[in-house]
This record gives sequence, structure tokens and C-alpha cells, in this order.
Amino acid sequence: MPETNPLIRAVAAPPIPEARAWTSTYVGQFGPLLDLSQAVPGTPPHEEMRARMAEVAASAEGARYGAILGDTALRTALAAEIAARYRGSVVANDVAITAGCNQAFFSTIVALVPAGDAVVLPAPWYFNHKMTLDMLGASTRSLVLTAHDGFVPDPQQLEQLIDKSVRAIALVTPNNPTGATYPAPIIERVMDVARRHDLWLIIDETYRDFLDPISPPHHLFKSADWRDRLIHLYSFSKSYCIPGHRLGAVVAGPHVIDALLKVQDSLQISAPRTAQEPVAWAMSALRNWREQNNRDVTSRAMTFTATMQALPDWRIDAIGAYFAYVRHPFPTLDGTEVARRLASEAGILVLPGSYFGPHQSTHLRFAFANADEAAISAIPDRLVRWQSTRAAS
Amino acid sequence: MPETNPLIRAVAAPPIPEARAWTSTYVGQFGPLLDLSQAVPGTPPHEEMRARMAEVAASAEGARYGAILGDTALRTALAAEIAARYRGSVVANDVAITAGCNQAFFSTIVALVPAGDAVVLPAPWYFNHKMTLDMLGASTRSLVLTAHDGFVPDPQQLEQLIDKSVRAIALVTPNNPTGATYPAPIIERVMDVARRHDLWLIIDETYRDFLDPISPPHHLFKSADWRDRLIHLYSFSKSYCIPGHRLGAVVAGPHVIDALLKVQDSLQISAPRTAQEPVAWAMSALRNWREQNNRDVTSRAMTFTATMQALPDWRIDAIGAYFAYVRHPFPTLDGTEVARRLASEAGILVLPGSYFGPHQSTHLRFAFANADEAAISAIPDRLVRWQSTRAAS
Repeated sequence: MPETNPLIRAVAAPPIPEARAWTSTYVGQFGPLLDLSQAVPGTPPHEEMRARMAEVAASAEGARYGAILGDTALRTALAAEIAARYRGSVVANDVAITAGCNQAFFSTIVALVPAGDAVVLPAPWYFNHKMTLDMLGASTRSLVLTAHDGFVPDPQQLEQLIDKSVRAIALVTPNNPTGATYPAPIIERVMDVARRHDLWLIIDETYRDFLDPISPPHHLFKSADWRDRLIHLYSFSKSYCIPGHRLGAVVAGPHVIDALLKVQDSLQISAPRTAQEPVAWAMSALRNWREQNNRDVTSRAMTFTATMQALPDWRIDAIGAYFAYVRHPFPTLDGTEVARRLASEAGILVLPGSYFGPHQSTHLRFAFANADEAAISAIPDRLVRWQSTRAAS
Repeated sequence: MPETNPLIRAVAAPPIPEARAWTSTYVGQFGPLLDLSQAVPGTPPHEEMRARMAEVAASAEGARYGAILGDTALRTALAAEIAARYRGSVVANDVAITAGCNQAFFSTIVALVPAGDAVVLPAPWYFNHKMTLDMLGASTRSLVLTAHDGFVPDPQQLEQLIDKSVRAIALVTPNNPTGATYPAPIIERVMDVARRHDLWLIIDETYRDFLDPISPPHHLFKSADWRDRLIHLYSFSKSYCIPGHRLGAVVAGPHVIDALLKVQDSLQISAPRTAQEPVAWAMSALRNWREQNNRDVTSRAMTFTATMQALPDWRIDAIGAYFAYVRHPFPTLDGTEVARRLASEAGILVLPGSYFGPHQSTHLRFAFANADEAAISAIPDRLVRWQSTRAAS
């Protein structure tokens, strides 16, 4: 039998199915399974949006190929929203619609980073970003972050990692897995590093709608040169509650968009049509609904923070939109083992920090956005009961 | 500004948008534009299928992430259909659902072929296959086919191209662009070559439903070792008339499927949901409708063949499902120039052979499946009128 690509063999298996398998031995003794493993919206899409998606799916047009870079209405609407939100200059031609934000990152790496070159990733990292770099033969320069600095990168330290083979810096803010939101001045200093070393700056802002809606997350889109090096990635999955429809975007200058046109044509032909026109409509029509959803997620973050104060030995080291990064109280246990037992013994499914990079076994990622307030409030009690069972056994 | 990936810069721009641009100067003097450029179904999906897709799109479940390798119902239904059609052994675990067949090829190359290794492609090739190999740093060993051999590869000649760096052979049958269907014994001899040299054999059978529905297209799925080297690619776009929904599949053994699990998780998370359950249902429920559609396409091929006999200087060198590969009567003109003029002067949009590989400028690809019988019948007359205008000018 021939060999598969050795780069693929070296990539770890997708973590979420592995973690889900741990729950198979949970028999419900602590109540229903609490799945806090994946960043999935807790609610279905708005009713009117579902009706519009149904209309597209029932139509002849919805079954036809779309434009490689996406429907014009969606590209235009996203550009206008970003221009307003970031108070910068963004037009429809800067936007490429992809089948989800993982694809946006994957295609961007194919477009910009030749095999053998390197990308700076803050660690802990989003595991699919690391898997993508590994399988495409790009190497990773990891900038290790800690609870001490709130899991926010230090631009000076970051600059020290840069050598001749580094082609790009990739940030995720608000971060997956830590939830940490990088302050605008930090992002702008990282952009300065990218300028000094002539690098691409990739910023995945999948969770940006769950921030304070007034202040721009950063001011990069205002700079005259943003199209020379900035690549903004976005997902429609979280804000519109449509992960199953696979819709994301890349926002970048013409050289990147031209390169993506080739990648996307070969990889995808066009993004799936069903949600494109409905999202273009929803962007302003459902603004209130989205904002209410975002407030609900924020409120879940506050509930989680408040409720976990009952357990001082479980320490929330970072929290933001969707995720909390929590230090577990078992310094002698590997985090994967803690997560496995939590899943199979207490029915709480979270991901171990070790899925997100080296030296992370002290932490667990809680994805709380899809749990309701009652479920979140029940977590400390369940943890206490589980810890006492462990002590007794 | 940093550079984009030099491999991407070396890839040609996607050809279909370029060709479409030629029609902008056509003013309708020969009648409405005849777009024979892209392999798109001529009819919308079946009404009941559209209703089912609308139901999924309206549902909460349809908006959720699916399984990385696809909905079980669809994997099971496709495996059963292939097992019956090819009279072989195929099970649900052999199937990975992708967002279209271009993605199936792209992910397969990432999974199996490291940058620097080579793939044998018969030429003319499907341009997106060549673009994918180029951008992923795989080199191409091209097996040049000719009208003389009916654009069918000679396994002996193919074997002579194999050296240490070849990792895979990739065939498309029925072929894009030529339409040629490779006889089962030829495919099996290519499989023997793959066995002798321990290579992967990738067969894209996107157009396999448009063949005689009785005889299996080949007997590879009957061989005990198929899972060791065969990768069958399929598209739901053509048979179910749903290109806009992006749905394809890879059928392969467990080592390949395990590798694809990692690629698809990073690239896509899950294929879009809307069409998955409806296609699983349609596979048997709409069998008659599909067969009628397939007969319509076959009938268009016959009409095209019959009608082009009026123009003996335009020679159909190969024809099959969806495509005819036609030698134009202007030996001194480059095929791209012929295609450009046909589009802008006669309103007939076809792709020049040069889009499909070197030494193809003598030919044009007619994608006739989306044109109706009346439009097809009108082609020769339009060509004659156009040629006489050219002669007069």
C-alpha cells in the first residue's frame, strides 16, 4: 500500500470527536451531559432568516453555482458593516466569501505561505490553525502566552521570534481557546512589527461581534496601507447561528484576493448559496436580534464568572466571548486525564488545554456560549460533587 | 508589501470568468448568447427534493455543524449505491462527504501527495486538477492523449512516465474536457500499473451517471485490494442538479479516510448540511427522475453529433456525458483566439483546448448538457453564418 502524506500522518487526530468519545461511559449520575466542548451557538437562526434560507433552498437559483468570491450582495454588505464598525475603508472587492472560517484560514495559508516558510502563532493556539500549518508544510514559531500576562501577546517578545523564514503572524481575537480579547493598541503594535519585517498579519475575528459594540476592535482598517498586509478572517457561523451552512470570509487587499480567487476556484468553485443572500439581508435587518444574542452570550460569561467564584481552586485565567480558560486544581494530573474523567464521571465535556499547544495541561477550555444560564449555574455544584466522589474513592 | 506564495503566482487565473468576459462585447446579432462554457445541469433539482432542502434549511438541525465526514444517511446511501452499481464491496465508512468534487480532489492531494512528489495526469486535463497540483507544489507528469487514440490513455505509455517521485495517477472518466469514457479494461490495466509501482489511483467519476446504467464503469471495487490504493471521487452536483449546494464525496480505504478526517476538519469542519439528507433520500426515491435526466443529456449528445455532421470541417474528436471535444477548422489560428471570437462575434461561449493543457489549441470544449435541443440544433447554422461573416470581412 502506498503511504499517505507524512505531514498528515504527523498531524494529531481532530480533537472534538476524540473528546466526545469520552462521554460514552457517562451514565447520567450527575444529570444530563453538559457539552461545553465546541463553539456552537446555543440558539437556532432567527425564524425569518430560516424562512429566507428555505426560500433559497427551494429555488432554482439557489442550486446554481455562485460567483467564486461570493454573492455580490453579501460581499457588499460585509464590507459596509466592517467599514462602519472599524471606521475604516473597506469595499466589496476586498471581500472573499468562503465555506466557513476554517476554510478562510486554510485558503489564506495556501495563498500566502509556501511550504517551508513559518508563521508566528501565539500559544495556546486554535488547534485547526496549527493542524493547517502542519499539513501544508509551514512551520510554526510559537509565542507562549501565560495567565500572568492575561494570555495577551507582548509585541516585543513576538518580534524576537521573527527570522528570515517567517512569512506571517496569525492572531485570533477574541481568542480561541482562552477567550482573551487583545487590546487595540497591542494589535496595532503587532501590525507595526509586521510592517517592520514586511510580513502578512492574519487576524481571525470570528468572535468580534461578542465585544462591546461601540469601540472598534482595532484601528487597522483606518491605516492607508492595510491592504498591503492585513488579512481579516470572519465567520458568519456564530453571529447568525448557522455553522451547518458553512459561511465565512476573508477581507484583504487585491493581491491577496487575486491569489484567493485561484485557490477558491480549485478548492470550492463557490461557497454554498443557501445562506448568502439571507445573511446579506440579516446584516442590518436582524441587527437587534444579533445584539440581543450577543448580550445573552456576555451574560453567560458573567454568570460563569460569578458562579465559579464558589470554587476558588478552579481559577478562570481568561474569559471572553464564547470561551473561558480555566486552571484546574489537580497540579499532578495531566489536563487530558482531568477532562476525560470530567466527561465520563461528571458528564461535563470540556477540552483539555493540551489540545491547544504545549505546556497547557494545567488548563481546560469551557465553551459556555451554547449552555443556558441554569446549566452554567449548575457547574460548580457538579464539580464539587465529583471532587468529593473522587476523594472518597 | 510581502509576496504571495510564488506557487500561486505561477498558477493561471480561473479560466471560466476570463472566458465569460469575452461575451461582454457580443451584441446579440446572432441570437441569444449560447453559454456552453461550464458543466452545469440544464434543469433545476426535482421539486420534491427542493422542498426537502427547504425543510432542512428552515430547521434548527440544518443550521448545526454536521459530522466531519458527512451525515451517516448520505454516507450509507452512497456506499450502497456504489456497491450495487459497481457490484463490489463498499460500506459507509469508506465514504467521506466533501463540499463538492473539486474539494474532494484538493483534500485527497493534501492527504496523499507531499509537495515535491508527482502525479500522472492525462492531457488534456481538468484545469482545476492541474491548478490544485501546481498550488500544492506537486509536479505533473503529463500523458499526452490525441484524437488518434480517442483521448483514451494507453497504460503502457502511462507506465513509462513513472519514476521514483510519482505518488499517484489521476484519471477523469467520463473525461472532462474531452467527454471520452475510458473502457473498463483500460481502467483495470491502469490499476495494475498502480499496483506494480505501489501508487495511489485517483479516479474522478463525476460524470459516471451519464453512462449506460447497466454495465459497471469498471470492476475495481470487486478487487480484494481496492482499499489499498483506489480513491474514487464523485460529485452530486450533476446528477442531482445541485452545484450551488456544494456536495461531493471521496470513496477510499481506511488509511485515506483517516487522513481525510484531519484535512476536512481543518479545511471545512463539515460539508454544508442543506442537501445531505435530501440527497440520501433522493438516491433511490428519485432514481427514475435521475435516469430520465441522464437520458436527456445522452439525447443532447446525439443531437449535437447529428447536427454537427452538417459541418464536416468542425470535427467532433470525442464526445460523452456533458462534453464534446471539437477540432476547429482554423489550423493557423490559436484556439483561444477562435473561442474569443466565437463568444464576442457569434455569441457561442465554449472553452479553448488551451485551457486544458499544452498542444490543445486545435480544439474547443463544448459543454452541451445545459443547452436544450433547439439551442443545440441551432449551433451549425450559427457557425456557418459566423464563418461567412469572417470570410466577407
